[in-house]
Amino acid sequence: MFKASGLITLTSDFGLRDPFVGVMKGRILAAAPTVRIVDLTHDIVAHWPAEAGFWLRRCFQYFPEGTVHVAVVDPGVGTARDIAMVLLNGHVFLAPDNGLLGEVISGRDDAHLWHLDMGRLEGLGVDRPSATFHGRDIFAPIAAALAVDRVKPEGIGRAVNALIPGWVDEATASEQRVSGVVITIDHFGNLITNIDRRLCERLIDPVVHAGKLSLSLRRTYGDARPGDPIALFNSFGVVEIAVAEGRAVDVLGLSRGAPVSVRDGVRRS
Amino acid sequence: MFKASGLITLTSDFGLRDPFVGVMKGRILAAAPTVRIVDLTHDIVAHWPAEAGFWLRRCFQYFPEGTVHVAVVDPGVGTARDIAMVLLNGHVFLAPDNGLLGEVISGRDDAHLWHLDMGRLEGLGVDRPSATFHGRDIFAPIAAALAVDRVKPEGIGRAVNALIPGWVDEATASEQRVSGVVITIDHFGNLITNIDRRLCERLIDPVVHAGKLSLSLRRTYGDARPGDPIALFNSFGVVEIAVAEGRAVDVLGLSRGAPVSVRDGVRRS
Amino acid sequence: MFKASGLITLTSDFGLRDPFVGVMKGRILAAAPTVRIVDLTHDIVAHWPAEAGFWLRRCFQYFPEGTVHVAVVDPGVGTARDIAMVLLNGHVFLAPDNGLLGEVISGRDDAHLWHLDMGRLEGLGVDRPSATFHGRDIFAPIAAALAVDRVKPEGIGRAVNALIPGWVDEATASEQRVSGVVITIDHFGNLITNIDRRLCERLIDPVVHAGKLSLSLRRTYGDARPGDPIALFNSFGVVEIAVAEGRAVDVLGLSRGAPVSVRDGVRRS
Repeated sequence: MFKASGLITLTSDFGLRDPFVGVMKGRILAAAPTVRIVDLTHDIVAHWPAEAGFWLRRCFQYFPEGTVHVAVVDPGVGTARDIAMVLLNGHVFLAPDNGLLGEVISGRDDAHLWHLDMGRLEGLGVDRPSATFHGRDIFAPIAAALAVDRVKPEGIGRAVNALIPGWVDEATASEQRVSGVVITIDHFGNLITNIDRRLCERLIDPVVHAGKLSLSLRRTYGDARPGDPIALFNSFGVVEIAVAEGRAVDVLGLSRGAPVSVRDGVRRS
Repeated sequence: MFKASGLITLTSDFGLRDPFVGVMKGRILAAAPTVRIVDLTHDIVAHWPAEAGFWLRRCFQYFPEGTVHVAVVDPGVGTARDIAMVLLNGHVFLAPDNGLLGEVISGRDDAHLWHLDMGRLEGLGVDRPSATFHGRDIFAPIAAALAVDRVKPEGIGRAVNALIPGWVDEATASEQRVSGVVITIDHFGNLITNIDRRLCERLIDPVVHAGKLSLSLRRTYGDARPGDPIALFNSFGVVEIAVAEGRAVDVLGLSRGAPVSVRDGVRRS
Repeated sequence: MFKASGLITLTSDFGLRDPFVGVMKGRILAAAPTVRIVDLTHDIVAHWPAEAGFWLRRCFQYFPEGTVHVAVVDPGVGTARDIAMVLLNGHVFLAPDNGLLGEVISGRDDAHLWHLDMGRLEGLGVDRPSATFHGRDIFAPIAAALAVDRVKPEGIGRAVNALIPGWVDEATASEQRVSGVVITIDHFGNLITNIDRRLCERLIDPVVHAGKLSLSLRRTYGDARPGDPIALFNSFGVVEIAVAEGRAVDVLGLSRGAPVSVRDGVRRS
C-alpha cells in the first residue's frame, strides 16, 4: 500500500525555456497546495524515453519513501497509448506506457503495475484533456491526488501484468565480458553507460573498452592527470568514461548508443 | 478584492545561469517565509516583453486564484517607466508598464489597473532601490507583501485607465481569413502563433498558410508521419505549426514574427 | 551562534540538464522534509570555484539570516581536500576548501571557520559516501541537519584559522587607479568585474578602462543609445561593462579574466 509523503518529482523533455513545467506546477498546487515539487530533469533528449527511465531507476531511492515520480516523455501524446503507474519500494511512478518505465521495473518482480483507468478519475480535475499536453491536463492533477493520498493507485488503475519494455537493451554479462552502451552524456561531457557495477563483480581485473580505448578502472576523477581519459564506477553505480578536467564526449569521439564493454584483463592475457 | 493564495510566479528574461532569479527568491522569502514560488519561464527573449505577455495570458488560469504573477522584462529599468499592477479573474500581475501586460488585459474590460505608487511603500523594504535590478529591489518585496495579504493593490497603487499597449498586433479576423504572427518558438522547435481558436470558428474548412505551406488542421502530433509539417490548435488554444518528430523552426525557415493566416479552404475553392 | 531559518541555497557547476541537483534536493528533503531550497546558480563555469565565491559574497545578504549556503564546485572530489564551513553575519556556508570561499571571507575578521570533521557525523546519514558525488552524499545531508538546527557548525567541525585563498587576486587600489578583472559574464553578455564601488570613492572623475575602451560611469542601461558601450556600478556594487540593448561580450572582444581599471580622469589630464 502506497503511503504518500507529499513530495512529487518531475522529469520531462520539456526543457526550461517555455512555461510548460511551470504550468504543470500550477495545476499541481491548485489541486494540492501543500505538495512539494522537485525537478529531476527536464532536458531528457526530446522524445527519447529511455534516458528518462535510466535516470529514474538510478535516482528514485534518494527521495523519501512515498514520493510520486512523474515522467512525461511522450511522443505519442493524444494517440491510443496508455498511462502507466508503478508501485516499487514505496515509491509511485506515473508515465506514458511507451517503454519509459521499462528499465525501472526490469528484474523487479515486486513492482505493482497499473494502467490508469480514464473512467475512474471523476472529481480529480481531468476533464476534457487537450490532445497535446497530458503533462498539464492528466499527469499533474493525478500526481497531486496521489501525493496527498486523495486516491491510491489501485483506486484509479487497472492492474496489468507487464508494461511496454524499454527501448535500449539491458547490459548483458558473459563469463569474461559485460556489454552495454553509452546511455547518456552529462553536463561535464562524461559518457555514462548502463553497465552496473554488480555485473562486473566476477571480473578479476576489469578493463573498460570503448572505441579504441582500453582503460583500467579508477576510483575518482582526481586519480588521473588533466586530459587523460579515465573509467570509473560513478556515483550511480555504473561505468562512466571521463576525461580528467576535460570533456570526454568532445575528446573521445563517442556518443549516445556507442557500445562499451568491460572485459577481464587477467584472463585474456 | 484580491484574496492572496500565498503563491507567486516569476517570469523574466534573466536566464538561469546567473544568480539573479535566486536572489529575487531570497528577498521574497526574507519578507514572507511561507510564500511558495513557481518559475514560469526565465528565458523570455531578452528585452522582448511581448513574449512574456503572451505566455502570461495563456498560462495564468492554470494557477490557483489569488496567485501573484511577477514579470520582469525591463529594458527601461531605472528610467522613468511606471510599474503596473493588474487584477484580473482573482489574479494579480506585477510588471513594468512597457507593453508587457498589454496582451493580458486586451479585450478584458473587467481588469483593474494601477500604477505602483512609490510614495506608499513604506515598511515594505523598498528602500533606495538600485537603478538596474528592480526585480530584486522592488518587484520581489512588493510581490511578497501582496502574496501574504500584507497589502492590497489598491493600497499601494494609483488607479489608471490604461497601460502601455502590447508591442505585437493582435490577430485579426475577417470573414474568410484570420491573420496573426509567430509569437514564440518552443523547446521542440514548434512555431506558436497568436491566432486563437475562437477567431477561426466561423471558417468551415480552415487551412493554415505560412510561407509556402498550406496545412489542414490536425488533432495531435501523432497524426502525421515523421518529418511531415502539421498545423494544430495547441494545448493553449492557438495555432501551432510543428514537424512530427522534428523541429519546425529548422525545417520550415520561419521565425518569430513571421505572418501566418488561417483561411477558409472550402469557400476559396 | 548560528540560528537556522530552515532555508538552504544551492550553488554548483552541475548544470540543470542532469538529475544531479534534483537528487541533492531529494536527499535534503528525505532528511529534513520542511526545509526550503533555493537554487542560486548551477551554471558556474565547470571547475572554476572563483566564480561561485564571487556570487556568494555578493548575494548571500539578500537571503534571511540563518540561511545555509551550499556550494559544490569540486574538481578535487574524492581526493584529500577538506570541506569548509563558515559562519558570517548569521549565515553558514558549506563548500569544498579549494578557494571557493576565499572571496567570501576576504577581509572579514568576524568570520568563524571550520573544517568538517568526518568523525563526528554519526547519525546524519553520511555513510560510505561515493568518491565522486559528495554534493549528494555529504553536503546534502549536512546542510539539511544544519538547516533544521539538528547540529551546529561547531558540533561537527574543527575550528581552523584560515581557508585556502581564492584563485583570483582581489581588486587593488592605488591613489589614482583601481585594478581588477572581469570575473563573470552574465546572461545578457554584460562583463562583470571584481572592482567594488567603495574602492573607487576617492577618484574624483572615474573613467573605466578595458581593452581599447575608456568609459565614463553612467547610472543605468537606459542612459546610453542602443549599441553604445557603457560602464556602471551594477546592482551588486561592482563595475560592469555593458552594451545598451546589446551583448558586450560579443561586441567588445573581452572575456573572463580580462584586466579592467578605473582611473581618475581629472588628475590624469
